[in-house]
Amino acid sequence: MKTQVGIIGGGPSGLCLARLLSQRGITSVILERQTREYVEARIRAGILEQGMADLMRQAGVGQRMDREGLLHDGIVLAFDGRTERIDMAALTGGKQVMVYGQTELTKDLYDAVLQDANITVVFEAGQVQPAGFLEGSPSLTFDKDGRRETIECDFIAGCDGYHGASRAAVPRDMITEYERAYPFGWLGLLSDTPPVHEELIYANHERGFALCSMRSPTRSRYYLQVGLDEKVEDWSDARFWDELRRRLPDRFAQALETGASIEKSIAPLRSFVAEPLRFGHMFLVGDAGHIVPPTGAKGLNLAASDMFYLSTALIAHYTEGRDDLLDRYSETALRRVWAAVRFSWWFTSVSHKFSSDPIEHRIQLAELDYLVSSVAGQTSLAENYVGLPFDADFRQAAGTAAP
Amino acid sequence: MKTQVGIIGGGPSGLCLARLLSQRGITSVILERQTREYVEARIRAGILEQGMADLMRQAGVGQRMDREGLLHDGIVLAFDGRTERIDMAALTGGKQVMVYGQTELTKDLYDAVLQDANITVVFEAGQVQPAGFLEGSPSLTFDKDGRRETIECDFIAGCDGYHGASRAAVPRDMITEYERAYPFGWLGLLSDTPPVHEELIYANHERGFALCSMRSPTRSRYYLQVGLDEKVEDWSDARFWDELRRRLPDRFAQALETGASIEKSIAPLRSFVAEPLRFGHMFLVGDAGHIVPPTGAKGLNLAASDMFYLSTALIAHYTEGRDDLLDRYSETALRRVWAAVRFSWWFTSVSHKFSSDPIEHRIQLAELDYLVSSVAGQTSLAENYVGLPFDADFRQAAGTAAP
Repeated sequence: MKTQVGIIGGGPSGLCLARLLSQRGITSVILERQTREYVEARIRAGILEQGMADLMRQAGVGQRMDREGLLHDGIVLAFDGRTERIDMAALTGGKQVMVYGQTELTKDLYDAVLQDANITVVFEAGQVQPAGFLEGSPSLTFDKDGRRETIECDFIAGCDGYHGASRAAVPRDMITEYERAYPFGWLGLLSDTPPVHEELIYANHERGFALCSMRSPTRSRYYLQVGLDEKVEDWSDARFWDELRRRLPDRFAQALETGASIEKSIAPLRSFVAEPLRFGHMFLVGDAGHIVPPTGAKGLNLAASDMFYLSTALIAHYTEGRDDLLDRYSETALRRVWAAVRFSWWFTSVSHKFSSDPIEHRIQLAELDYLVSSVAGQTSLAENYVGLPFDADFRQAAGTAAP
Repeated sequence: MKTQVGIIGGGPSGLCLARLLSQRGITSVILERQTREYVEARIRAGILEQGMADLMRQAGVGQRMDREGLLHDGIVLAFDGRTERIDMAALTGGKQVMVYGQTELTKDLYDAVLQDANITVVFEAGQVQPAGFLEGSPSLTFDKDGRRETIECDFIAGCDGYHGASRAAVPRDMITEYERAYPFGWLGLLSDTPPVHEELIYANHERGFALCSMRSPTRSRYYLQVGLDEKVEDWSDARFWDELRRRLPDRFAQALETGASIEKSIAPLRSFVAEPLRFGHMFLVGDAGHIVPPTGAKGLNLAASDMFYLSTALIAHYTEGRDDLLDRYSETALRRVWAAVRFSWWFTSVSHKFSSDPIEHRIQLAELDYLVSSVAGQTSLAENYVGLPFDADFRQAAGTAAP
C-alpha cells in the first residue's frame, strides 16, 4: 500500500490533519489502534480556541460545531471569597472560545473522513512501527487481522499521543525531553445536569482547585484537584458533589445541580515537551510531542497549531515544491508550544494548592488580586486563554489572516 | 521625656516618617541603635519609585535627589542571547524610577532631621523596649550612656527592620508570620566605574542571574546570584568580573569597565510578611513588617507606602481627630505589601536559577519571550516596576493625587 502522508493515530489531530490535506488533494492513510467507537467515547477536551474552530471549518466539518457549540466571552475566577469575571472578548478585540466536546468533534471528523476518497482509515492497527523516516524512505508497518502490513509514504505524521509509537521510534540521541510532574491530579466528573453557571468557573480554594466546565447546556464537566494517591473508587458521587460545593463561592455552591455521574476519572497533571518535533520525514503533532496540564484548556488547541503548521507546510511542499515551511515546522510549532506550556504552568500554579505552606496561598491570592485589578494583568490572561496567534509567515502561506 | 510619636530606627523609613509628621507640627523622637556614620554607610537600595521620590520632596529633602538622581524610563531584560528593552515610561503613561542611593538619601534626611525642632534623634540607643502599646500607654525604654531612659508617647512606629525590637515585642499569639527562603543569595559589588549601560540590565543566564545597576554616572552596583554556601572571601574582584561577563550578552560583557570594589557582600533572599501591621498603639513600617527579595527593587519603596499611609493617618488623627485611617493602616498597607511580595517573587522566579532541571529554564525563557512580545505582558511588568498606586482614600485624605 502507498500513500502520500502516513498518519499514526485516529484522534482529532490525525483526523483533522487528514481532512486539511485532503482539501488540497493530498492522500493519507490513518492507522488507529482502537475501534471508531472506542476513540469517539474518550472524554477529553472541550474548549476550542478560535484557531481550532477555524481549522474544523477549513476541514469542512464545522457545521454541527457552529450549530451546537457554545461561544464564551469570558471566564470567572473565584478566590478569597470573591467572584471576578474576566471579559476575554472585551480584552482581546472580540475573541471568544467555543465549548464543544472532543467526543462530538471526533464524531464529526469521522463522519467526514470515512467518506473522503483521499483518506483511508485502518482501525485496530496493532504494533505500528514507523521506519525509514531518517533515510528518506518512510514506511509504517502494522498488524491487521493477524497479518503484518506495510504502507510506504512520503511523510509520517505522529498524531498518536504521549504513549504512541512515533516518538518512541526516534533514536534517543536525537531527541531532548523536558518534563515536570505536578504533586496532584484532577478528578473529573461528567453529568447530565445543567452547568452551575453559563461560563467556566476557576476556583482557587484552601482545600484545592476546582473547575466548573461544561460540554453543552445540559451536560456539565466538573473537576477537583486531588492527591496523587487518591483512587476514583473512593469518590462516590455524593462525596464529589460535597467537596465541590465546599470549594465554590456560596452563590454557586447553592445553585449547583447535582446528578448521577456518566464518567468519573482521575488524571495526573504533567508538562512535557520533546525537541525537536521533526525527524527527517517524520513530524510529531499534538500530545505525541508535548503535554500541558489541562488548566488552561490548551492541549487540543496546541495540537491545532501543530496541525495548521504541518498541513500548511505539506501543502506548500506538494503544490508549490516549497520545503522551507517543512524546515521551519519544528521551531515554529515549538515556540507556541512553549508559550502554552508556560501559560498552563502559570494558570496551574496560581490556582492549585501545591503545599500547606501558608505563604504560597497568600502569594496566589495577591497575584489574583493584582490580576483582576489590572487591565494589563487581565489582558495577559485573556490573550493566552483565547489563544496566542499562529505564526505570521505560515498564516500568509496558508492564505488566511485568522487567527 | 515625652513626645507624640516614638520612632524606633533611624534608617530612611524612620527619618522620612519623622519629617512628614514634623511638616504638620507633630513631634517625634527617633531611637537609633548605631551612630549616624554607621547608618549612612549602609549600602542598600538605589531605585526609588515616584511615590518614594514624592515623599522625599514632601519631607522637604528632595533638592539634592532631584539634582543628582538619575531618572530612568526603562530597563533591559537579557535572556537567551537576546537583549530586550522594556519602555516603562511609555507603557505606564510616563512614569519613571529614580536612581539615587539609599546612602545619599539617608544623608539628606539626617541633614534635615537634625535641624528640625520637632524631631529628637537619640543615637546609640541600646536595648530599645516598646511597652504599653496594647494598653494605650505606649512607651519606649532604652539604654543611653549607661543609663536606662524612658520616653512616653502617643504612638510607636517600628521602623527598625527585620531584626528590630518592635515586632519582637508583639505577643506571639497576636501575629502571623509568612516566610519563604530562596535557595540562593546575591553577591553585590560596588565600584567607582561608569555603569556598563545607562539603564539597569536584568540578565537570566544558565549560570544564574546577574544585575547591572548603578548609584550614579560614575558608581556601579553589580550583583551575581550565588549559592547560599558561597563566602565573600572566595570572590576576588577578578573572579566577580569574570563571572559577571559570562552572564551578560556579548555587547555588555565587552563594554564592561571593571575596577576595584568599594564594597562586596552576600545577602540571602527572603520573602517575609507579618500580619497585622498594627498592634494597639504600635505600627510596623517597612522591613520591620515585611521583606522582599531585591529583584524588583521594592524594599524601600514598600517602606514608602507604609510611611505614606501611617503619616497620613497620624496627621488625620492629630489635625482632624479622625481615627478611621489609623484603623485601616494595616489592611491598606498589607494589600500593597502582598502585591510587591508577589511581584518580587515573580521577578525573582523568572530570572534566577532555582534548580538544574532543564524545563525550569525553558519555561523561564518562554515567559520572557511571551512578556517582551506582548504589550499586556510588558505593561504588567512595567506598572509593577514603577510602583502600583497608593490607596485612593489615603491619597484623598493626604490631599495629593500622586502617585
